[in-house]
Amino acid sequence: MVHEKVYVVGVGLTKIDRWYTKSARELFAEAMTKAIDDAGGIKPKALVVGNMTSSVLMEQDSLGALMADYSGLRGIPAFKVEAACGSGGAAFYAGYSLVASGLVDIVAVGGVEKLTEKLTAHATQALAQAADAEYEVFYGASFTGLNALVARLYMSRFNYTSEDLAYWPLRMHEYGASNPYAQLRRKVTLEQIIKSPIVADPLRLFDCSPLGDGAAVVLLVRGEELARKIARETGRDVLVQVAGVGMATDSVDLGSRRDLLTMDSTVVAAKKAYTMARIESKDVDVVELHDAFSITGFISLEDLGFAEKGSSVKLWKEGRFAKGDKPEVNLSGGLKARGHPVGATGVYQIAEITMQLRGDFPGLKASDPEIGLAHNIGGIATFSTVVILKRKT
Amino acid sequence: MVHEKVYVVGVGLTKIDRWYTKSARELFAEAMTKAIDDAGGIKPKALVVGNMTSSVLMEQDSLGALMADYSGLRGIPAFKVEAACGSGGAAFYAGYSLVASGLVDIVAVGGVEKLTEKLTAHATQALAQAADAEYEVFYGASFTGLNALVARLYMSRFNYTSEDLAYWPLRMHEYGASNPYAQLRRKVTLEQIIKSPIVADPLRLFDCSPLGDGAAVVLLVRGEELARKIARETGRDVLVQVAGVGMATDSVDLGSRRDLLTMDSTVVAAKKAYTMARIESKDVDVVELHDAFSITGFISLEDLGFAEKGSSVKLWKEGRFAKGDKPEVNLSGGLKARGHPVGATGVYQIAEITMQLRGDFPGLKASDPEIGLAHNIGGIATFSTVVILKRKT
Repeated sequence: MVHEKVYVVGVGLTKIDRWYTKSARELFAEAMTKAIDDAGGIKPKALVVGNMTSSVLMEQDSLGALMADYSGLRGIPAFKVEAACGSGGAAFYAGYSLVASGLVDIVAVGGVEKLTEKLTAHATQALAQAADAEYEVFYGASFTGLNALVARLYMSRFNYTSEDLAYWPLRMHEYGASNPYAQLRRKVTLEQIIKSPIVADPLRLFDCSPLGDGAAVVLLVRGEELARKIARETGRDVLVQVAGVGMATDSVDLGSRRDLLTMDSTVVAAKKAYTMARIESKDVDVVELHDAFSITGFISLEDLGFAEKGSSVKLWKEGRFAKGDKPEVNLSGGLKARGHPVGATGVYQIAEITMQLRGDFPGLKASDPEIGLAHNIGGIATFSTVVILKRKT
Repeated sequence: MVHEKVYVVGVGLTKIDRWYTKSARELFAEAMTKAIDDAGGIKPKALVVGNMTSSVLMEQDSLGALMADYSGLRGIPAFKVEAACGSGGAAFYAGYSLVASGLVDIVAVGGVEKLTEKLTAHATQALAQAADAEYEVFYGASFTGLNALVARLYMSRFNYTSEDLAYWPLRMHEYGASNPYAQLRRKVTLEQIIKSPIVADPLRLFDCSPLGDGAAVVLLVRGEELARKIARETGRDVLVQVAGVGMATDSVDLGSRRDLLTMDSTVVAAKKAYTMARIESKDVDVVELHDAFSITGFISLEDLGFAEKGSSVKLWKEGRFAKGDKPEVNLSGGLKARGHPVGATGVYQIAEITMQLRGDFPGLKASDPEIGLAHNIGGIATFSTVVILKRKT
């Protein structure tokens, strides 16, 4: 039983891009400054930072204190959380606990990733560290290669072609085009997707989220009184409450999984979050889910409870989960087009859902949503975090 | 305000050593299995793992899920916390919040480090990542070199010689000799210390904690009822309550510090922990503090409130803080002799204090202590965590 309610009172994002000339600390300070401004100037008293690759690509640890200091917050409790590509969601899970426990009353949850610090080959290698170093990477597996195995099995089991999967990036590029924070802001045609180079058969270039840099921050407070005060001072008439949080894990290596086509950790995390929020999947209005690859997007729809196993591709092609449907999915453009700055991605999603519930998301707007869901995974759902936010007037 | 009390109900440690033939997951599973046994078989429902160097030396991320799975706990929420050498303390801070918040009722806080995975030169480089990559390491600073600067200034300001500092390792080696988990279980003479090779002037080999591998786990539960049930089932008549936790940070680079001879983050973290526990420093009976180098041990004594600034070396040479005094300090042998498996160290300290309060520490026993303190830092006190444990009958 959590005792007092937690609210998101501010969000800050950088545009996602290949920021060759900006360091991680610069990106992070930008996101933090924006989040503090967005919350009417309130300063966080602790910081949890989601990040995966700083140790390898930036050769930098002590990331929590570094980001706090460079954001003008020297001295506050701060640490980094790592859960591979799910580091942002896991950081939220930890940051939520700091607030809910009563230890700290205003907490910043941030995420930052700088993938362009070294050459792309280094980034690919760093990202493969999400997989099991002794059981998988040692034998030459890449992260895209492992996801390709899952895609091949899914297509074979449910009779889909790689052309069917192409409808995922088609829509994501369309949505990302109107998101000012997105890395890839251009529409593409089905033909461009289908004819793009193969990265790991059957996954083509357009099935994969891009490499990019970015930082995101959300500010959390405990208790409705403080949340209302901040809302008043920032001229908002709605609160965004954290109604549910769920986290679960699975084996790191794919070989030990119960079923390659179900992300058990997502199923469990979603169930926990729905139970805590006292809702069901059918109640959700707007979703940001973790489509690191087209196949991951489709399987996520199923494991979050929005589609029967094997049906999501068919439903998607029929136009389900688009703007105007319930739920509306990845209006940001998703990892595919908004981008996937690894440890920051989970925080981007929560910031986007917060803005959708407040009605001020600067890209494609959801249709007056009351309940939103953010879904972030690490590895091939080695980690899953599901966060449910509710609009409260 | 934290609503319900949190208790340490089980601890598990590996001996610290250069475990060339054991992997991190094997060490961790050993510590976890021992902790679960120690708590009468109760299984944790979430895991926070403190670790610094796995990304670089093991080329492995996803550490939280990996350690959970290999310990037989596949599926539970799990993530890694990084705060350089203070990762274990920071993991405790996060794990404590998970329990206290009401999200999870039984949480394991673990730490693991495998420094011998690559050559010693690689370990030295990985440890330097605690410092600022752009402001310090880029210019050739090593972690020992930076601590040597602090030692030189301290000696100059307060008129001590490097021979005076040698009394720290002298006592730590004596204490470590009786700790079965310690890496260095041999007494040394003052002459051996003084004549040992210089690593970074004025720090000699014996002023530095050794490189070693190890894993530690403590199990936390919420509420006195569950803690009492476990105590009954394990035949214990005392509870160990987490009475206070405090964390603070500082700049990563030393050049930005207010004062090189005061670890501000330790002062603040200690103050928070004392306030939360409603005690003062004079009430503490037994302490495990972070003596990564002799100089760090002495400055820690001062910043935790046990000695006036500049007086700790004099007091130590006079026999203060030894077995039989109040407080008794580093009966384990400290980082110097017990060893310093980086991200696990903070968890070792909490496990040791827990055993001291229960009366079953297998090394040098404290004199019937009621209040214990664990102090873990990362970098040169870029991070500090102070945890206060109380014996409760």
